[in-house]
Amino acid sequence: MENKEDILRRGRLSAGPSEEVNAFSSSIPADRWIFRSDITVDRAHTVMLARQGIISKEDAASILKALEKIESEGVDAVNIPVFEDVHMAIESKLIKSVGENVGGRMHSGRSRNDEVATCIRISARQELLGIMAELLDLRMAILNLAGENVDTVMPGFTHMQHAQPTTLAHHMMAHISALDRDFERLADAYKFININPLGSAAFASTGFPLDREYTTALLGFDRPMDNSMDGVSARDFILDTVSKLAILEVDLSRMADELILWSTSEFGFIELADTYSSTSSIMPQKKNPDILELIRGRCGTVIGHMVAAFSITKGLPYSYNTDLQEVTPQLLRSFEITRSSLRILTGAISTLKIKKDEMRIKSTMGFTTATEIADTIVRSTGLPFRTAHGIVGKLARGDGNPSLSEVDDASMDMIGKRLSDMGLTQKMLEEAKDPLKNIERRSVTGGPAISAIGKKIESENRKIKDDEGLYAGLVQKLKRSEDELSNAVKNTISG
Amino acid sequence: MENKEDILRRGRLSAGPSEEVNAFSSSIPADRWIFRSDITVDRAHTVMLARQGIISKEDAASILKALEKIESEGVDAVNIPVFEDVHMAIESKLIKSVGENVGGRMHSGRSRNDEVATCIRISARQELLGIMAELLDLRMAILNLAGENVDTVMPGFTHMQHAQPTTLAHHMMAHISALDRDFERLADAYKFININPLGSAAFASTGFPLDREYTTALLGFDRPMDNSMDGVSARDFILDTVSKLAILEVDLSRMADELILWSTSEFGFIELADTYSSTSSIMPQKKNPDILELIRGRCGTVIGHMVAAFSITKGLPYSYNTDLQEVTPQLLRSFEITRSSLRILTGAISTLKIKKDEMRIKSTMGFTTATEIADTIVRSTGLPFRTAHGIVGKLARGDGNPSLSEVDDASMDMIGKRLSDMGLTQKMLEEAKDPLKNIERRSVTGGPAISAIGKKIESENRKIKDDEGLYAGLVQKLKRSEDELSNAVKNTISG
Amino acid sequence: MENKEDILRRGRLSAGPSEEVNAFSSSIPADRWIFRSDITVDRAHTVMLARQGIISKEDAASILKALEKIESEGVDAVNIPVFEDVHMAIESKLIKSVGENVGGRMHSGRSRNDEVATCIRISARQELLGIMAELLDLRMAILNLAGENVDTVMPGFTHMQHAQPTTLAHHMMAHISALDRDFERLADAYKFININPLGSAAFASTGFPLDREYTTALLGFDRPMDNSMDGVSARDFILDTVSKLAILEVDLSRMADELILWSTSEFGFIELADTYSSTSSIMPQKKNPDILELIRGRCGTVIGHMVAAFSITKGLPYSYNTDLQEVTPQLLRSFEITRSSLRILTGAISTLKIKKDEMRIKSTMGFTTATEIADTIVRSTGLPFRTAHGIVGKLARGDGNPSLSEVDDASMDMIGKRLSDMGLTQKMLEEAKDPLKNIERRSVTGGPAISAIGKKIESENRKIKDDEGLYAGLVQKLKRSEDELSNAVKNTISG
Amino acid sequence: MENKEDILRRGRLSAGPSEEVNAFSSSIPADRWIFRSDITVDRAHTVMLARQGIISKEDAASILKALEKIESEGVDAVNIPVFEDVHMAIESKLIKSVGENVGGRMHSGRSRNDEVATCIRISARQELLGIMAELLDLRMAILNLAGENVDTVMPGFTHMQHAQPTTLAHHMMAHISALDRDFERLADAYKFININPLGSAAFASTGFPLDREYTTALLGFDRPMDNSMDGVSARDFILDTVSKLAILEVDLSRMADELILWSTSEFGFIELADTYSSTSSIMPQKKNPDILELIRGRCGTVIGHMVAAFSITKGLPYSYNTDLQEVTPQLLRSFEITRSSLRILTGAISTLKIKKDEMRIKSTMGFTTATEIADTIVRSTGLPFRTAHGIVGKLARGDGNPSLSEVDDASMDMIGKRLSDMGLTQKMLEEAKDPLKNIERRSVTGGPAISAIGKKIESENRKIKDDEGLYAGLVQKLKRSEDELSNAVKNTISG
Repeated sequence: MENKEDILRRGRLSAGPSEEVNAFSSSIPADRWIFRSDITVDRAHTVMLARQGIISKEDAASILKALEKIESEGVDAVNIPVFEDVHMAIESKLIKSVGENVGGRMHSGRSRNDEVATCIRISARQELLGIMAELLDLRMAILNLAGENVDTVMPGFTHMQHAQPTTLAHHMMAHISALDRDFERLADAYKFININPLGSAAFASTGFPLDREYTTALLGFDRPMDNSMDGVSARDFILDTVSKLAILEVDLSRMADELILWSTSEFGFIELADTYSSTSSIMPQKKNPDILELIRGRCGTVIGHMVAAFSITKGLPYSYNTDLQEVTPQLLRSFEITRSSLRILTGAISTLKIKKDEMRIKSTMGFTTATEIADTIVRSTGLPFRTAHGIVGKLARGDGNPSLSEVDDASMDMIGKRLSDMGLTQKMLEEAKDPLKNIERRSVTGGPAISAIGKKIESENRKIKDDEGLYAGLVQKLKRSEDELSNAVKNTISG
Repeated sequence: MENKEDILRRGRLSAGPSEEVNAFSSSIPADRWIFRSDITVDRAHTVMLARQGIISKEDAASILKALEKIESEGVDAVNIPVFEDVHMAIESKLIKSVGENVGGRMHSGRSRNDEVATCIRISARQELLGIMAELLDLRMAILNLAGENVDTVMPGFTHMQHAQPTTLAHHMMAHISALDRDFERLADAYKFININPLGSAAFASTGFPLDREYTTALLGFDRPMDNSMDGVSARDFILDTVSKLAILEVDLSRMADELILWSTSEFGFIELADTYSSTSSIMPQKKNPDILELIRGRCGTVIGHMVAAFSITKGLPYSYNTDLQEVTPQLLRSFEITRSSLRILTGAISTLKIKKDEMRIKSTMGFTTATEIADTIVRSTGLPFRTAHGIVGKLARGDGNPSLSEVDDASMDMIGKRLSDMGLTQKMLEEAKDPLKNIERRSVTGGPAISAIGKKIESENRKIKDDEGLYAGLVQKLKRSEDELSNAVKNTISG
Repeated sequence: MENKEDILRRGRLSAGPSEEVNAFSSSIPADRWIFRSDITVDRAHTVMLARQGIISKEDAASILKALEKIESEGVDAVNIPVFEDVHMAIESKLIKSVGENVGGRMHSGRSRNDEVATCIRISARQELLGIMAELLDLRMAILNLAGENVDTVMPGFTHMQHAQPTTLAHHMMAHISALDRDFERLADAYKFININPLGSAAFASTGFPLDREYTTALLGFDRPMDNSMDGVSARDFILDTVSKLAILEVDLSRMADELILWSTSEFGFIELADTYSSTSSIMPQKKNPDILELIRGRCGTVIGHMVAAFSITKGLPYSYNTDLQEVTPQLLRSFEITRSSLRILTGAISTLKIKKDEMRIKSTMGFTTATEIADTIVRSTGLPFRTAHGIVGKLARGDGNPSLSEVDDASMDMIGKRLSDMGLTQKMLEEAKDPLKNIERRSVTGGPAISAIGKKIESENRKIKDDEGLYAGLVQKLKRSEDELSNAVKNTISG
Repeated sequence: MENKEDILRRGRLSAGPSEEVNAFSSSIPADRWIFRSDITVDRAHTVMLARQGIISKEDAASILKALEKIESEGVDAVNIPVFEDVHMAIESKLIKSVGENVGGRMHSGRSRNDEVATCIRISARQELLGIMAELLDLRMAILNLAGENVDTVMPGFTHMQHAQPTTLAHHMMAHISALDRDFERLADAYKFININPLGSAAFASTGFPLDREYTTALLGFDRPMDNSMDGVSARDFILDTVSKLAILEVDLSRMADELILWSTSEFGFIELADTYSSTSSIMPQKKNPDILELIRGRCGTVIGHMVAAFSITKGLPYSYNTDLQEVTPQLLRSFEITRSSLRILTGAISTLKIKKDEMRIKSTMGFTTATEIADTIVRSTGLPFRTAHGIVGKLARGDGNPSLSEVDDASMDMIGKRLSDMGLTQKMLEEAKDPLKNIERRSVTGGPAISAIGKKIESENRKIKDDEGLYAGLVQKLKRSEDELSNAVKNTISG
């Protein structure tokens, strides 16, 4: 199949690619993903070319009008598979519409190498903002759950063994702290994405007198990339963003794993809403946490995409190599997975049924109060911690509810003295064994006591507000540049 | 959106999933991929159920006729997104067609857990056979190229530095040896795929008196899996296959990297056919090896899929968990990439233009004959190798074409004697410096001498024949089981 | 620091490497790992050189005697860090001992490139055999545990939810089936390791008349590699072996994860022996399954090593590049981790305390008998499976122990009829709800019924015997070649 | 082997671990790595305990004096392998020195879980600062090289094909731009490392009235972590840092790959200093870029460590699990590799010999001036770019040095007109074909023209200065906290 409209190959190459080679070379999903960004880049470039006098105002106006039509007809109306990629598909359609003598001027002073890098960055920042918005929702959903459960006593785990009693609020706030840092990382990622390679051309910039500051402003970038070879070779922003998404995904998968565990018959701490469950094709009683399993599983897929991106770019000489084309889909799919996982997890958390009784009953199973008993011994008797730890260790083979005389037996055995003779009273022991009093005592910064958690909830509320502000600021800055571009287009068209 | 036909959720769960949850849970490409395999499994299972008297012959006949229709209408006619997956979509369409009283019997004694595992194995072995066929083609293409170039002298490299002269045939046969082992590994992978989980049901088998040997025969499997929990939990065959594809991909990427290197201006050893090249959007002189770069790059994507598959299955308790759903696409995409890469590389190799003159001219650059000179010194003078190595090392700072007197100077400097006094002659030195004679001397097994390469080409020819036989045997075995199933279906329908 | 004994650099290079560069270039653990293999290779090569008349018998005898001494003094006596690697360290020590005029001949007709590849293969097959032996032990330990628990009823899980009752034997035999395949894969890996690159020299073989079949026999290899460039470039055997170890590690991590889960307070199915547990520095009651957590975690490390190996070799042109040096440690560490994990897990399994009562009590929690009730309805009433599934689904919101009248209510609601009028009796229902009877009914191949498990245990016993035979065969073959080499050395020394 | 000094196991567990289990559980290199950090944490915690009145000033003084001795004796004097880890080894040695009644009080209000997290963060930030310093050196070395080569003309590459002429300065500055962002990322990583988990205890904080702000100040952290479960569960800072190191490693590997390529016989652009080269064991003429190959290869190892860290933490429920112990070595080894790679590459770059003539000669090979000719046509004739591209494309099949009449022929063929009739002159054509004039024209921001590169070098100089300031600020802040701790220790000891 020869493509008669092939404006690229008519020069250097005499034979066209086979359909098979075409199919192999193309990257349709990624090309579709950047369609709108590409039109935007075409607009900004054309406006600038005209302003710099590189092309005439009239030609620019014709091009801009044609681009408007191409955009409104949508990505399905440009035939990507017939051309090499979305850039050539748009340019070809443009030339078909306004003729080569006009449309053939749009690509002056640029190359697909800088064009595609610019488009990916524009689409990526949009996706990133979407993810940030979803992450704000998830944090809020967890914060609400925590707020309703500041006194919901539950066992805390280390090594998946009961360790000490804590509250559901304390547990859920741990996840929020992790997500706070994820948000901060995404905001960092934005900085590395939002710089402008346009004007780098193939890698060596161009002899046309481009105004790179102007396109930078029109496209909402923070600054132009200041080495043109770097402009087309760099994909560190993809490695960086995908890594940060993968870290976020790890945090989601850890949460999902816990919720799966907590909804087993054995744990029985929670029940998922029906909407977030499925059943079995043969076991009619089943209520399966499929979506949580998928969240956990897809974290692995994002890790895979990250590895692919690193593995592809490793050892690649400068400047542009087509291997880089294969990096973009890794980013694209990572965005898709992370965004939907955030959204679904927010729904599942918001509709979760907490079985408080189960949690409370299990909170003292496994002698979870042992540490507090040891600490109480230290405070009441003045024994060193390590000795108290040894005495309580002896009690651990019992039923987890030692009486004062059992404590005395253990201390006799270990140090030859009775703790009740050294200041430990029945009341102290009972308080140490009461999970809620036990928790209340742990009121240092970061602890589970209601007072400590209250402070944490408050500060978290402020943090979410701040992050919403940061997010809104980024959105507004983009909006302003869109308006500027829009006006510049109008002015160019109207002459 | 409530799906009125939802035959699964009407029992246990009161609320349906939201569209968003449905979209999140589904895995359309993988479901489409196993559509035909699923119909095949439905057929074999139904035939067996009837033969065992678990369902009536009449019901079986109705089901089998309906399945034929469903298959002929194709995957687009069953509405996967509305149902949870392809299995339920087919069963729902079946029930719509023949009523629940008949269609509702097909799922007796099985579960989606064993069903999906069986379907993946059937689709996977088909893909694997396709890959094996492509790999046979590639090996043949390289063998042909080698056959035409047994005396095409070129520099051989270590550390990408010129090391010793060799021939293009010797170089290309190295790649064949690697691909031979890849083929052997794929044949090994087949054994781990081709075992039958059907009859494992949800994980615990079933109380219905299934005949698992019979479905094993009808479906062309080598044997049934003999633990039903293993049947639904195991995905080692995916990890195994994807790893083997990734190793093959590494071998392809190494070849692609070399060809890219060889087609640089600096090397200039080869020229790609236009069909396998592209040009630039701004640099009209460019002829770019895009497809080779993609082959090299996509190896990274397959490595990523491998990592995803391992990362998802790590630490997953038995038996079935939905995380496993996310493993299948990693396999599917790895198959796609590997298969197309093989095909394209075969085309590129078959149409390669070899620039023999360039290769020959560069074959002695970098004093590549130094080793043979050292070896000649050892043979002619009786000096130990290490001493000869030292003498020739001194010559390495020269122009790479030492005269006998220069050799003598170096040996005087090193051992205080002239080599020409110890047996080294002008003729010996010249022969050592002549690349072709140099090569001819290296005739041990595996060496580049024409005689040695001739033997290797011969044995390789036999090996490819043998592997074609192995491949054909697998294909025929499947064909026989398809016929058996087809007959069994006919007999059941005709009563 | 100038190394006066540097027999390599005295020729070509005028400046020695700095200590820093030396430290950067060296790979001590890998070099130590192949020390004995290197001596073995030196021996076989020397014997062959003498037999082929390439060096004299006397020189060979001196070299062989010196090698004996070097081996007996051990790896610490050759100063690897001062030289580039273990090969040069041994050769330098040899030359110091017998003089360059003798010792300088050992390296005739070979290069470090083929030498190191040969050494790695020899060390790797030894490690692989060690792993195979450990794996046989683990399979036996699990088989013993299964044998003692053919009637230990427990809940079976899908999605970590209670699904149907099964037995511990059935569950553990699932793991054995996976490990059977792992063993088979390791035996496959052996084939790809055990081929001989020696004689490939730098990549281009050599003009010396080596007898590669002879060294192949002396070193216990299956055959020589038949392309010398492939001989030094190929690391597919490492990718292959590491992948297979990683799959095995995934299987171990899945088992570890389950055992961790089962030893939680909530599950309470098992108790680890104290030897395989640890406690806490502040929570004296804790009994933590550290070693199982490490087994689960280290699987991730092996996955990392696998990725490193793939990522390093991807896109690497032929023939030898130093990047390959960095691949060996990935193999070495994967061997270490896998071997110790196997050993420790075998110990933990062998000393496990099974809490049968807990397992039995929980086996019917979560209405695990629902599937058997549905199947019983199908068999007794002739209703289609899908309808029975729907009726039992309605019962799933109850307490998991439905009476016949509750079943009738559900069927009235669903199909307008009472199942007790259609053939379902009280006795049938009770049997379906009894976990042991329930299990007994599932006697198809692979099922949990005692009869089915008995057969599986028997066949597994045979399989382990067979695999022990396979293992012993490999060990004996190596022993024979060691004897042959030993005799050849003796004969050469004694003249 | 029973360890009589085992202060942990004497309570809960009756049997000690076997030596084998001990060996399996331990993580010696990571434990050694944090030895000094652990002593520091012990000091800060002890000072704070005394200040808060949790232990007496006298006990604190004794502990602090003993710690001083333990530190001065060094890590080899505490017997890590006998105890579980470095924490217990230090505490045991302390107790041996000052008795349990004093030493047994140090661990009050903390756990190994928060202790180890704190130690890793302290050691990690130290390593990170080391890396930042090395990275500043490398940037400076490249900047110097660029500064010396602003007019060193060379071919620029896309797809490894000659594309357009550029300068070595322009090429090297591309790498600097990438490294600038790497530095910025490392500074970001520091924020996520430098927060304080101490006081989180096992995960639930403690009832002792700790002053977490005070230990935060003494240890130089930016703030305390404000959820104690997060404090011990979070390893995102490791995932984050390792990812950023891996991105930096990718950038180094790309540079290494280029330098390897440039030092081939075919390219011949550069020559490595002897110190940074090695030779061959049999090919005496070889000069191999081993260390660059290792830099390229080890990037793969760091990618592997990254994958391991992600794979281990994925799906891990809260709070502490021993799997996390396996994450630390991934960080540690990534630091080691990255740091040494930076250092060695800096040395190699600083001693590089540039073969300017080779570069210049090759700068016009492959018709690299085609783009500038096309642009010149656009500017001189007013033809659209796409048409000019087509005309020059026709010339690409020639020798790369078209005369005006050849250009005219091509344009006649394409558009039926002569370009010399439309404004293109001989002089314009010659200037376009002259590589240096060609480069001079490309003076937009980021371009290779001497004027543009001059600005970039200037701004880069400022950026490096700024980053040195940032680095120095971090170092000083740590120094101040060290002084504060040191004074607090002195005051506590002196009472």
